[in-house]
Amino acid sequence: MSSASTTTTRPPRNGVDVPTLFATLDAVKAQPEAARFQFRAVNRWISGTHSRTTIHGFFGVGEEQEHTSAYTYDADHPEVLVGTDKAASPVEIVLHGLAACLTAGIGNIASARGIELTSVESRLEGDIDLQGLLGLSDEVRNGYERIRASFTVTGDASDEELRTVVEQSRARSAVLDIVTNGVPVDIDVRTG
Amino acid sequence: MSSASTTTTRPPRNGVDVPTLFATLDAVKAQPEAARFQFRAVNRWISGTHSRTTIHGFFGVGEEQEHTSAYTYDADHPEVLVGTDKAASPVEIVLHGLAACLTAGIGNIASARGIELTSVESRLEGDIDLQGLLGLSDEVRNGYERIRASFTVTGDASDEELRTVVEQSRARSAVLDIVTNGVPVDIDVRTG
Repeated sequence: MSSASTTTTRPPRNGVDVPTLFATLDAVKAQPEAARFQFRAVNRWISGTHSRTTIHGFFGVGEEQEHTSAYTYDADHPEVLVGTDKAASPVEIVLHGLAACLTAGIGNIASARGIELTSVESRLEGDIDLQGLLGLSDEVRNGYERIRASFTVTGDASDEELRTVVEQSRARSAVLDIVTNGVPVDIDVRTG
Repeated sequence: MSSASTTTTRPPRNGVDVPTLFATLDAVKAQPEAARFQFRAVNRWISGTHSRTTIHGFFGVGEEQEHTSAYTYDADHPEVLVGTDKAASPVEIVLHGLAACLTAGIGNIASARGIELTSVESRLEGDIDLQGLLGLSDEVRNGYERIRASFTVTGDASDEELRTVVEQSRARSAVLDIVTNGVPVDIDVRTG
């Protein structure tokens, strides 16, 4: 053990800047109002079931923020559902958000615990009976009945440690909470 | 009124092939098992909080289906949340899916009712207190506390008719159901 201070700059672990991650946690602990965020999306209909969403500004850490660029994403229905299949469908986009949220959590948590990840892969499946949204049955819900997510995680830690990383990501995932527990949605309509 | 059959091909209304839409409804009515769909997403971690989802195959109408191409979408956390901001964040992606689902419904329902839409725009906002997902408070949930969606719809129909189109889309939206009512999610973990 040496008492000499080390000034070596370590590369970010798994691409995560761990000192800044911990500093951010400390800053939010000291000023809980910094944790109040608002995320936004603006969508424009293009044609049929095809639309485009732009995601740029958000609020957080007490002030307006902007992504490094404005991100645009399309959505459409597949042809078998009378769409033009210009992009993934809205229900598939929900799977994308869920997978990405759990995976980002795995990246952060593994890094905070000093685990070098080699790979994180997941496959999500959502079962849906379209009799609900097609208005053909009032006993069938509109959305997914069930979602299954299968993760395969490899890294320089024991199976047990890797599993607890996934478990902690699950325990703190924003999108998993949204998708499993539901969120109140207010819809306001203006006509031109 | 003429008894002569007309063979004029009308252009799709709002980009929606309405005869095929109604034929699809009739086909599902006759064979409810055709309505059982499974949507899928495969996600791979890239680095830090950055991951990429591929969406290609799905199951429906009794057989395996494929989108016209494999769609890939990235997700990341913004820099203020110690990400690298290569794409929208997972919670923003949920807003995209919700906006796109309600908008696709508006396109289909307006078309089925003979309404020509001029524009559909929506702005979604989701409020979230990050003390939850950062693990700094057990009293704060991980996900959105509330989502607001503001739609502006214009077309060749009365305000009342346009409002009922939005209302019907809300009543039959898959993603609105998922987000407001929640879905059971099973997570399976394998380690390498």
